[in-house]
Amino acid sequence: MDSTTLLEQERSRKGRGAKITVVSYDGTAVEKSSATDMGSALEWIGRRRVTWILVQGKLEMDELMVLQKWGGLHPLVIDEIAEEGPSRPKLMDLQGVIFLTWRLLLLEGLEVKEERAVCLLGKGFLITIVPPGVRMDKTMDALGNEHNEIRSMGTDYLLYDIIDSVIDDYFSISEEMGDLIEDAQDSILNDGGTEALANVQGLRRALIKVRKAIWPLREVINALVKGQSDLVDAYTAPYYRDAYEHTIELMDTVDTHRDMVSEMLDMYQSMVSNQLNKIVKVLTLISVIFAPLTFIVGLYGMNFVHMPELSSPYSYPAVLVIMLVLAVLMLLMFKRKGWF
Amino acid sequence: MDSTTLLEQERSRKGRGAKITVVSYDGTAVEKSSATDMGSALEWIGRRRVTWILVQGKLEMDELMVLQKWGGLHPLVIDEIAEEGPSRPKLMDLQGVIFLTWRLLLLEGLEVKEERAVCLLGKGFLITIVPPGVRMDKTMDALGNEHNEIRSMGTDYLLYDIIDSVIDDYFSISEEMGDLIEDAQDSILNDGGTEALANVQGLRRALIKVRKAIWPLREVINALVKGQSDLVDAYTAPYYRDAYEHTIELMDTVDTHRDMVSEMLDMYQSMVSNQLNKIVKVLTLISVIFAPLTFIVGLYGMNFVHMPELSSPYSYPAVLVIMLVLAVLMLLMFKRKGWF
Amino acid sequence: MDSTTLLEQERSRKGRGAKITVVSYDGTAVEKSSATDMGSALEWIGRRRVTWILVQGKLEMDELMVLQKWGGLHPLVIDEIAEEGPSRPKLMDLQGVIFLTWRLLLLEGLEVKEERAVCLLGKGFLITIVPPGVRMDKTMDALGNEHNEIRSMGTDYLLYDIIDSVIDDYFSISEEMGDLIEDAQDSILNDGGTEALANVQGLRRALIKVRKAIWPLREVINALVKGQSDLVDAYTAPYYRDAYEHTIELMDTVDTHRDMVSEMLDMYQSMVSNQLNKIVKVLTLISVIFAPLTFIVGLYGMNFVHMPELSSPYSYPAVLVIMLVLAVLMLLMFKRKGWF
Amino acid sequence: MDSTTLLEQERSRKGRGAKITVVSYDGTAVEKSSATDMGSALEWIGRRRVTWILVQGKLEMDELMVLQKWGGLHPLVIDEIAEEGPSRPKLMDLQGVIFLTWRLLLLEGLEVKEERAVCLLGKGFLITIVPPGVRMDKTMDALGNEHNEIRSMGTDYLLYDIIDSVIDDYFSISEEMGDLIEDAQDSILNDGGTEALANVQGLRRALIKVRKAIWPLREVINALVKGQSDLVDAYTAPYYRDAYEHTIELMDTVDTHRDMVSEMLDMYQSMVSNQLNKIVKVLTLISVIFAPLTFIVGLYGMNFVHMPELSSPYSYPAVLVIMLVLAVLMLLMFKRKGWF
Amino acid sequence: MDSTTLLEQERSRKGRGAKITVVSYDGTAVEKSSATDMGSALEWIGRRRVTWILVQGKLEMDELMVLQKWGGLHPLVIDEIAEEGPSRPKLMDLQGVIFLTWRLLLLEGLEVKEERAVCLLGKGFLITIVPPGVRMDKTMDALGNEHNEIRSMGTDYLLYDIIDSVIDDYFSISEEMGDLIEDAQDSILNDGGTEALANVQGLRRALIKVRKAIWPLREVINALVKGQSDLVDAYTAPYYRDAYEHTIELMDTVDTHRDMVSEMLDMYQSMVSNQLNKIVKVLTLISVIFAPLTFIVGLYGMNFVHMPELSSPYSYPAVLVIMLVLAVLMLLMFKRKGWF
Repeated sequence: MDSTTLLEQERSRKGRGAKITVVSYDGTAVEKSSATDMGSALEWIGRRRVTWILVQGKLEMDELMVLQKWGGLHPLVIDEIAEEGPSRPKLMDLQGVIFLTWRLLLLEGLEVKEERAVCLLGKGFLITIVPPGVRMDKTMDALGNEHNEIRSMGTDYLLYDIIDSVIDDYFSISEEMGDLIEDAQDSILNDGGTEALANVQGLRRALIKVRKAIWPLREVINALVKGQSDLVDAYTAPYYRDAYEHTIELMDTVDTHRDMVSEMLDMYQSMVSNQLNKIVKVLTLISVIFAPLTFIVGLYGMNFVHMPELSSPYSYPAVLVIMLVLAVLMLLMFKRKGWF
Repeated sequence: MDSTTLLEQERSRKGRGAKITVVSYDGTAVEKSSATDMGSALEWIGRRRVTWILVQGKLEMDELMVLQKWGGLHPLVIDEIAEEGPSRPKLMDLQGVIFLTWRLLLLEGLEVKEERAVCLLGKGFLITIVPPGVRMDKTMDALGNEHNEIRSMGTDYLLYDIIDSVIDDYFSISEEMGDLIEDAQDSILNDGGTEALANVQGLRRALIKVRKAIWPLREVINALVKGQSDLVDAYTAPYYRDAYEHTIELMDTVDTHRDMVSEMLDMYQSMVSNQLNKIVKVLTLISVIFAPLTFIVGLYGMNFVHMPELSSPYSYPAVLVIMLVLAVLMLLMFKRKGWF
Repeated sequence: MDSTTLLEQERSRKGRGAKITVVSYDGTAVEKSSATDMGSALEWIGRRRVTWILVQGKLEMDELMVLQKWGGLHPLVIDEIAEEGPSRPKLMDLQGVIFLTWRLLLLEGLEVKEERAVCLLGKGFLITIVPPGVRMDKTMDALGNEHNEIRSMGTDYLLYDIIDSVIDDYFSISEEMGDLIEDAQDSILNDGGTEALANVQGLRRALIKVRKAIWPLREVINALVKGQSDLVDAYTAPYYRDAYEHTIELMDTVDTHRDMVSEMLDMYQSMVSNQLNKIVKVLTLISVIFAPLTFIVGLYGMNFVHMPELSSPYSYPAVLVIMLVLAVLMLLMFKRKGWF
Repeated sequence: MDSTTLLEQERSRKGRGAKITVVSYDGTAVEKSSATDMGSALEWIGRRRVTWILVQGKLEMDELMVLQKWGGLHPLVIDEIAEEGPSRPKLMDLQGVIFLTWRLLLLEGLEVKEERAVCLLGKGFLITIVPPGVRMDKTMDALGNEHNEIRSMGTDYLLYDIIDSVIDDYFSISEEMGDLIEDAQDSILNDGGTEALANVQGLRRALIKVRKAIWPLREVINALVKGQSDLVDAYTAPYYRDAYEHTIELMDTVDTHRDMVSEMLDMYQSMVSNQLNKIVKVLTLISVIFAPLTFIVGLYGMNFVHMPELSSPYSYPAVLVIMLVLAVLMLLMFKRKGWF
Repeated sequence: MDSTTLLEQERSRKGRGAKITVVSYDGTAVEKSSATDMGSALEWIGRRRVTWILVQGKLEMDELMVLQKWGGLHPLVIDEIAEEGPSRPKLMDLQGVIFLTWRLLLLEGLEVKEERAVCLLGKGFLITIVPPGVRMDKTMDALGNEHNEIRSMGTDYLLYDIIDSVIDDYFSISEEMGDLIEDAQDSILNDGGTEALANVQGLRRALIKVRKAIWPLREVINALVKGQSDLVDAYTAPYYRDAYEHTIELMDTVDTHRDMVSEMLDMYQSMVSNQLNKIVKVLTLISVIFAPLTFIVGLYGMNFVHMPELSSPYSYPAVLVIMLVLAVLMLLMFKRKGWF
C-alpha cells in the first residue's frame, strides 16, 4: 500500500470521484480500460467471460444508485458499501449475488491501521471497492501475463486470487510483528525499562486487531466453499480450501505471538522480582556488616569515667582486629548462603 | 433517555396509568393517536396493515387482563409483562404471537443502569412496553417521514427498526466506555493512585453488564430469523441478519474493552512493582553510602587513650579525603550497575 | 427451612418413621390427609386426577419395597431413594415413570449446607421425598387456594410448581450471597485484614456449591421438556422453559458473584502491594533524611586533636543550620517526587 | 490392593505365569476353579450362561496366541493386552467382542500410582486381565452370595459390577485426597513453610492423574451404553448410566479439589505478601523511632568547644525528656495508622 | 535422524537431485531399487500390489511436472509439494488421490526443529517425500522381513506404518522433554537463577511447537478413517483408530508437561517471594537488635558536663549488662515469632 493513501483518500472525499478500472477477459484476450462512471463500467459486463470492475475510492450516492438499479440489489448491500470505516469481515448471499467485506491491514510502527474492502461477486462479474491508493498490482500483473492460469478461469478464481493476496499481506504483517516482538524481548532483557512495557502493550493490542481481521475472514472463505451458491465451482474449491488453511496457519502464528507476549510479561515480572531481591540483598549485606561495627565504635565512644579498656595501649588495635574478624566472618557467612 | 425517567416511573407507580400511543399505518397513510386504555388501543389493530401500540410505563393488572383476553395469551406472558426489573433478554414463540424482552442500558458515570423492554409481535400488530420516559423518537420520526422505507413494510421491519435503535444505543454506550477506559489508562499512568484502581473495577463491572445485555439479544435475533414463524418474511430477514452481525461486532468491542481493562490492571501491577524497586534502590543507595562513612567517623570518636592517629595534624584531612573517595567510588559502582 | 431440621432428621433416623402427607385433587375438590405408611398412601393414587404424596424424612427399607412392588420400579430407583447425602441432580426416564433428584440449599453463615430431594413422577401421581423438616408451604398453600391455576392442572404443573419454589429459594440464597460479598468488599477496603481474606475463600467455596446445585438442575429441566415422555404436556412446557430461563439467570448471577470475588482478590492483592509501597516509602524517607545528618554529627564527634572547626564559636550554629537546610532540601525533593 | 503387588509382579515377570481363575455361573449354580493355562480356561466358556476368566498377572506370548486363535481377535487387541504400563482408558468394538482398558489407581503418600486393567467382553464370557495382586474380592463375594442379583444376570451386569468397584476405589482415593488437601491447608495456615508448598504441587499432580483416569473412563462407559452392540441389554443400561453419572460426580469432586488447591496457592501468596508487609512494618517502626534519637545523641556527642547547652545542668535531663516524648509521639502516630 | 541432514540438504539444493527409492511388493515378493528420476520410478506402479516411492530430498520442477502429468494432479498439490519449510499438517482428498503433510520434529537442546513430510496415497501406490537424510529404516526393515504383517497388506497399512513411526518419534521427543522439564525443576530448586528461568521459557516454546505438530495430525488421521475414500479399508481402520488414540495420549502428555511448566513458574515465583521474605527478615532482625543498642552507646557518648551516671564506676558494666539483656530479649522475641 502506497504512503500517499491518506492524502488521496482526503482528496477523493472532497469531490474527485473514485477511480474505476475495468478488466474484461477470457481465455483468448484481455481488455483493460478506465471508466468515468459506474454506468459505463457496468456495460462491460457480459462482453467477455469475466469482467472485473475495480473501484479505488469512495462511490458517490448516485453511482451507488446506478449500481443498485442495474443489479436489483437489496438496499442493505448499498448501505454496507456506503458505510465508512472497517467493519467485521462478512459474507451475504443475496439472490445470485454474493456480497463480501474484509479488512486491509497496514502496520505503522506498533499500530495496526484497518481499512475496508468490499466485493460483489455475480455471474460473470466481480466488483471490488477498495480505499483510494490501494493497488491490486499482484492480480493486475497476473491478468497481464498470458501464461497465468487466471486467464483461463472464471470470476471465482479471480476472487480467490484477490483474497490470496490479502492473506499474503497478513502474513507479511504477521512476520513484521514477530520481529517487533523479538526486538521487544531483547529490549526488556537489556534495559528492562517501562518504555519496553508500553511497547508490549502496544503489540498486544495490534495482535488483537490482526486476530479480528483474520478470524471472520476464515468464516467468509468457509461460507464461500460450503455455500450452495453455484458461483464457486468444484475446480476452484480446493484453492479456497487452501486459502482457508492459510488463515488457520495465520491464526496459529498470531496465537503463538500472543503467547510470546504473555510470556514476555511473565518474564518481565520475574525479572523485576529478581532485581528487587538483589537490591534488598545488597541493602541487607551492608546493614548486617556495619550495624555491629558501628555499635562497637559507638561503645568505645562512651564517656564513662571508669572504662578500664580505654587506657590500655592494646585496646585500640584489639578492637580493630575484632571488627575486622567480625566483618570477614559475616562476609563468609553470606558467601556460604550464596548471596554474592 | 430523559433524566426525569425515575421520577416519572415513580409517579406512574403511584396511580397515574401508563401512556399509550397507537400508530397505525400502511403504504398510503399513517394515523397516530393516544389511547386512554388498552382496550381502545387494541381496537385499532386490523384497521391498517401495521398497528404499533407503544406503552410507556407500567400497565395495571386489569389492563393486562384485557390484553390477555383479547389475544388469548398464555398466562406466562402476562406474568412476564407484569414483572419488574430487567430480566435476561429472551424470546418465546407462543401460537402465533412472539414475545420478546431486552434490556435498555443507561450509562451514569461508571455505572450502567438496566431497564426492561417488552414486545409482542403478532399478525399486523406490534405492542411495545417500555419504562416511562423512554422515547422511541428515531422510529417515530421514521414513521412520520413518508419517503422512509418503513412505511411500505410490515411489522417485522418495524420490530427490526426498534431493535436496531436499541443496538445503536448500545454502540454509543460502548464508545463512551472506550473513552472512559482511555481516561482511566491515562490517570493510572499519571498518578497511579488507588482511586484509579477503583474506577477500573467499576469499568469491569459495567462491561459485564453490557455483555449480559448484548449476548442474549443476539440469541433472540437469531431465534427470530431461524424460527419457523411466518411473522418475519424473507425480504426482512437480511436486515435481522445485519442486526445480528452488529451484536457480534458489539461483543467484539466489549471483549476488546475487557482485554484493555485486564491489560491496564497488569500494567498497574507492573508499575507498582517498578516503583517499589525504585524506592528500595534509593534506600539501598543511601544506606550503602552512609553506613561505612558513619562507621569511620564513629571509629575516630572512640575514646581510647592510645590512638596514635588522633594526634597527627594530617589525620583529619586524610580521613575526610578517604571518606570522599569511598563515597565517590560507591556512587560510581551504582552508576555502572545502572541504579540511577 | 426450619432450624430444627437437623434435630428432626436425627430423630427420624433413630426409629421414628417419615411423615407422609397425601394430597389428592382435581378441578373440583382437594383432599388432604396423613398416611401412616406408604402402602395406604399409594392407595390414594387414581382416586382423583392428581395425587401428591409428600414424604418428609427417610423411608425404611420395607416401605421402599412396598413402593417398588407397587410401581414395578427398577432396583436402581430404590437404591437412589435409599441413598443418603446430596447427589448430583439428575433425571432418569424409566418406562412410564420419571425419577428426579435435586439439591436443597441452606445458607448458614458463609457455609452452604446441601440436602437431597427426590421425586417420582408418573401418570396421575407425584411422590416427593424430602429431608424431615423441609416444609413445602408454598405449594401446599397454592393447592389450598381454590382460585389458583394449580388446581385445574395436572401432575406436570405440580412438579413445575415445586421446582419453581426450589429455584426461588436458590434466588434468595444468591441474593444473600451478593450481600455477603458486598460486606466482604467493604471489610477489605476498611481493615484489609486476613480474616476478610478467609471470608473470601469461604464465599468462593459456597459459590461453587451453589453452581453445582443449579447447573445440573438446568439439565434436568431441559430433559423434562425435551424428553419424549408424555408426562409433560404442551401447555405446561412454557412454564418449564421459563424455569429453565430462571436457572440460566441464576447461573449468570452466580458467575457475576464469582467474578466479583476474583475481582476482590485482585483488589486485595493490589492494596497489599500499595501498602507495602507506602511503608517502604516511609522507611526510605526517614533513612534518607537521617543518614547524612547522623554522619555529620558523627563527624564532629571525632576526637582528632587537630580539627580547627571545633574551636570556632560559629561552627556549632553553622553545622546546625547546614543540617536543617539539608533536611529541608531532602523533604522538598521527596515532595516533588510525590512521596507524601 | 496388596502391599506385595510389586514383588509378585516382579516374580511373575521372571517366569512364573499369571494366576488364572474361572467362574462360570447362571441363575442356578456357580462353579469356581483355577486354570493352569489360557487354553483350559477358555474351554469353560459356554458351559453356563456367564463365564468370567480373571487373569492376575501378565500373560506370556504363547498364551496370548491361544487367546487370539480361539477368538479370531484382531492383532491390535493382542498388542494392547501385551503392552505394559497404564494407557489411556479406551473401548474398541471389534466384530462381536468389546475390548476395554482402564486405570487402577493407588494412592501412596501424595503420589498416585497407575496400573492397567484390560477386559474382553463377548457373548457369554468376560475375560479380565489385571496386574498380579489386584484382588477383585467385592465381585467374587457377590458371585458367592446366592441372593445377589448378579447371579441371575448376564456378562453385561458382571462388567458393570467390576467397573462399579473401580469407580468406588476412585471415590475412596478422591476422599483421601480431600483429606490430604485439608491437611495441606492447615499446615500452610500454621507454619506456611516451603515444604507445604511442595506438598501442594504434589497434590496438584496427583489430581491431574486422577482426572486422566476418570475422564476417558466416562467415555468408555458412554460408548458401552450408546454403542449398537447387543452385548449390553436394555435392563442393564440404567446401571451403566448410573456409573456414568458417578464418573461425572467424581469429576466434579476432582475439579473442586483442583479449585481448592489453586485457592490454597492464592492464599499462600497472599499470606507471604501479608507477612512481608508485617516484617517491613517492624523494620520501619524501629528505624523511624531510633533514627531521630540516634541523631540527637550524636548531636550532643560533637566535640565543638562552643556548645553552650553542654554546660547547663538541665540539658541532659531535658534531652532525655525530649527524646522520650519524640519516641512516644511516633509510637502514637503509628498506632493511629494502625501499624500495630 | 542423521546429524549430516543439514549438510545433505544443502548439497541437494545446490544441484544434486533427490534420492529416489522404489519398493514394490505383494504377499509373495519384494523388489527394491533406486530410481534416477521420477519418470522411471512411476513406471513401477502397478507391477505389484503395492509400490512405495520414497523421495529423500527436494524434487526439481521438471520432476514435479512429470508427476503431475502422470497423475493428472490438481496444480495445488504440486504447489504444496514444491513449498519449503514445515506447514500445518493437512489432508486433501482429490479425486482418487489423497495428499497428506505432517511435521517431522527434531529436538536440539531446548529447541525443536521442524521439517516437512509429504505423502501421496493412491490406488496401489504411496509416494513419500521427506527432507534429505530422513531415513525410514523402521518401515524399510519391516518390508525386508518376510514374516512381517506389512508384506501381506496394502498401501493403507504402509501409510499407517509410516505415520506410526512418526508418532513414535514424537513420543520419544515428548519423553526427552519430560526429562528436560525435571532437570529444569531441579535446577530451579537448587540455584533458582535466571538461566533456569530462560530454560523454562525455551521449554514452553518447544512444547507449543510439539503441540502444533500433533494436533492437526490427529485431524488428518481422523479424516483418513472417517473419509469416504475407499483407499483405507475396514481391516486397517482399527490401526488408524489406534494411531488416533496415540495422538490423544501424546496431547495429554504435552498438556501435562505444559501444566508442569506453569507449575514450575508458580513455584519459582513463590520461591522468589519466600526468599525476599527471608532476606528482609535478616535485615529487620539486625536493625531491630542494633538500633536501640547504638542509641544507648550514643547516649553515653554525649558531652554534657552534668551527666551523673558517667562518673559512677558501676555505670559502664551496668550499661553493658542492660544492652546484653536487651539483645537477648529481642532475640527471644523473634525466636518466639518464628523468625529463625
